[in-house]
Amino acid sequence: MAQEKRTPPELRKDPIIGRWVIISTDRGKRPLDWSVEPEKKAGGFCPFCPGNEDKTPPEIYSVRPDGSDPNTPGWKIRVVSNKFPALQIEGELLRRGEGIFDKMNGVGAHEVLIETPDHYLDMSELSDIHVRDIFWAIKTRINDLQKDIRFKYILAFKNHGSAAGASLAHSHIQMIATPIIPKRVQEEMEGAQKYYKYKERCIFCDIIRQELHTDIRIVKANKNFVSLEPFAARFPFETWVMPINHSSRFEDISYDDTLELAKLMKEILQKIKTTLGNPPFNFIIHTAPQQEESNYEYHWHIEIIPKLTKIAGFEWGSGFYINHVPPEDAARLLREGGGQ
Amino acid sequence: MAQEKRTPPELRKDPIIGRWVIISTDRGKRPLDWSVEPEKKAGGFCPFCPGNEDKTPPEIYSVRPDGSDPNTPGWKIRVVSNKFPALQIEGELLRRGEGIFDKMNGVGAHEVLIETPDHYLDMSELSDIHVRDIFWAIKTRINDLQKDIRFKYILAFKNHGSAAGASLAHSHIQMIATPIIPKRVQEEMEGAQKYYKYKERCIFCDIIRQELHTDIRIVKANKNFVSLEPFAARFPFETWVMPINHSSRFEDISYDDTLELAKLMKEILQKIKTTLGNPPFNFIIHTAPQQEESNYEYHWHIEIIPKLTKIAGFEWGSGFYINHVPPEDAARLLREGGGQ
Repeated sequence: MAQEKRTPPELRKDPIIGRWVIISTDRGKRPLDWSVEPEKKAGGFCPFCPGNEDKTPPEIYSVRPDGSDPNTPGWKIRVVSNKFPALQIEGELLRRGEGIFDKMNGVGAHEVLIETPDHYLDMSELSDIHVRDIFWAIKTRINDLQKDIRFKYILAFKNHGSAAGASLAHSHIQMIATPIIPKRVQEEMEGAQKYYKYKERCIFCDIIRQELHTDIRIVKANKNFVSLEPFAARFPFETWVMPINHSSRFEDISYDDTLELAKLMKEILQKIKTTLGNPPFNFIIHTAPQQEESNYEYHWHIEIIPKLTKIAGFEWGSGFYINHVPPEDAARLLREGGGQ
Repeated sequence: MAQEKRTPPELRKDPIIGRWVIISTDRGKRPLDWSVEPEKKAGGFCPFCPGNEDKTPPEIYSVRPDGSDPNTPGWKIRVVSNKFPALQIEGELLRRGEGIFDKMNGVGAHEVLIETPDHYLDMSELSDIHVRDIFWAIKTRINDLQKDIRFKYILAFKNHGSAAGASLAHSHIQMIATPIIPKRVQEEMEGAQKYYKYKERCIFCDIIRQELHTDIRIVKANKNFVSLEPFAARFPFETWVMPINHSSRFEDISYDDTLELAKLMKEILQKIKTTLGNPPFNFIIHTAPQQEESNYEYHWHIEIIPKLTKIAGFEWGSGFYINHVPPEDAARLLREGGGQ
C-alpha cells in the first residue's frame, strides 16, 4: 500500500509561529505503534553493553584506557551513530515550499554517547574523572560536528528513566546536529541580545551575581560553576548549572573546568535522586548556535528538569506554566538533601 | 518553621525569554508531595457528583432543566470556582521588581465546569445538545469574566486522564483568567499579524483553504467547522478544530454554531478514542486576547493533543520537537477510524 511507505525525515516549519519540527518516521514502527506508551522490559538484551559492540553502528569516538581495538570490549565511554536517527547525515538542505508551507530535507546527525560499560550505573554513580571524560567527549564531538557547516545547532541531552523518554535503560546521552536553531535557544539568544543592547552586560552573568548575593535560590556553587533554581522556574525542582565566568559556548570549556563541572553535576544529580526518590529527568546543554563566533550576550548552561508532574499537553499547548513548588523551597530542600 | 509558610500565588517573569509563570503553592501539599506522581483511586469520593454540591465552592453558572435550586442535585452542567485556585480573584495587579526580576500578584480567576452529573461519561459520550450546552457555558463564562479588565486572557482547557494532568476522573473543563497573555498565544498573535501585514489575509484562513483543497490532512469537516492535522504537528495525532469562516474570538460564537462545533468535537474525540485506545489527552481553546476588539488577523481554534509519547522534558526544554507520525498518516487513520 503506497500510503504505508516510510518517508525520509523532513523538517517542517509551523507557518504561524515559525517553529521547525522534525517529522521522522521511526523505521520498523507503524503510526499506531505510538498509540500505547512502550513498556521497558527489565533485563533482556542491551545493545549498549560490552560484547554487543557489533549491534550498534561503528564507534565514532571512544575512551579506551586499555588500548583495546575499536568496536570491541575494553571501552569506558563510546560514541556511535544512533541506529534509528531522527535526521540523516546524507543530502543537501534543499528548502522548498508546499503551497503556504515551508519544508527542508531532514539533514543532520544523531549520535549516542554510551556513558559506561556498566548497565546498572547512572551518571551520578560514576567517578568524578569518568564524568569529566563524558563531558570532554561531548565537547570533542561538538567540535567535530560543527565542522559541517550545514549544522546550525548541536543539541546534547540526556533522558533518564522511561517516563522522561529514555528508550534504553543503559545510561547514555544523545547529540543531535540540526540545520536549524531550536526555537527555545533562538528565544534565549534574542532575549540575551536585547538585554545586552540595553545594559551592555550579559543577563545570565547579572542573574548569577544577584543569585549568589541573595543566596535563596542557590543549590550549590564551586570555584567555577553554580547551580540554582531559576526565579521563574516552569517545573518543580527545575535546576540550572552554569559557569560563573562568562562563556557563550559549552564547547569552549577547558579540560580543568570539565572536572569542576563533572563534580557539580554529579552532586546535583545525587541530590535530586536522594531528595526526590530517583525521579525520571532530562538535562539539556544550552550552548550558543554553531557557525557563529563566541559572543558577549549568551551564556551556556545546563537545564535539569525532573519529571515529577504528569501535567503535560496543557503546558505544551499554551506555553502557560503553573509551578506548585516555589524555587526558594526547592533550593532549600536540595541544599539540605544528599550529595557529596 | 517560617520557611514552610505557604505564600500567595505569584506571577513571575522569566528575565531571559519573557515568559510569565505562575508560582502557586497548592494548599495542603508540601513541596515534596510533588516528588511522586499522584495515583488516582478508582471509586472513592467525588466532589463533582450530584449530592456533593456542598463540597465545591458555590455555583457560578448552571444548566438545570428541571428548575432545581442552585447547589442541589438536578443540574446538567455546573460551573464553580476551583477549590484550589492557581490564581486568586482578590487584589491589585501590583507589578514590582526583585532586583533584576519582575513579578506581579497572582490575581486571576480559576473556574471548573463540571460537564455532566454522570461520573462515568466522557464528553464524547454525551448528547450533541449536551455538548453544545457545554460550549455555550464556556462562551457565557468567558463573556462574563472578561468584564473584569484586569484579565488579559481566559484560557479554557480540558485534561482527560491522569497522565494528561486530570486530578479528578469526573469529566470537567477548567477556565483560568490571567492578567497576562500566555506566551504561546502571544506568539500566534504576532505570527498572524506579521502574515496579515504581508498578505492582508488571515494565515489561518489561508491554511484552511489550502488544506481543504489538498485534502491530505483533513480529518473531517462539516458546514462551518473543520478538523485537521497541522502540517508541522509537534505531537502524533495532534488535531485542530477550527471555524471555516474567519472569527478571532471563540466567545463570539453563535448559538447555532455551538451545535455544529459540538457535533464535530464529539466525533473527533470518538475517533481519537477508537483509533488510539482511549488515550489521555488535552484540548485547549485558543482565542484572541481579551480586552481587545475582534480582529482580521487571528483565528480561534481548538488544539487537541493526545498524550501518546512519554518524551517530555526534552521538548519542554529545547522547544525542539520530533514527531514520529506524519500528519498525513494520522489524518488518514483518524478519517478511517470510528466516530459518528
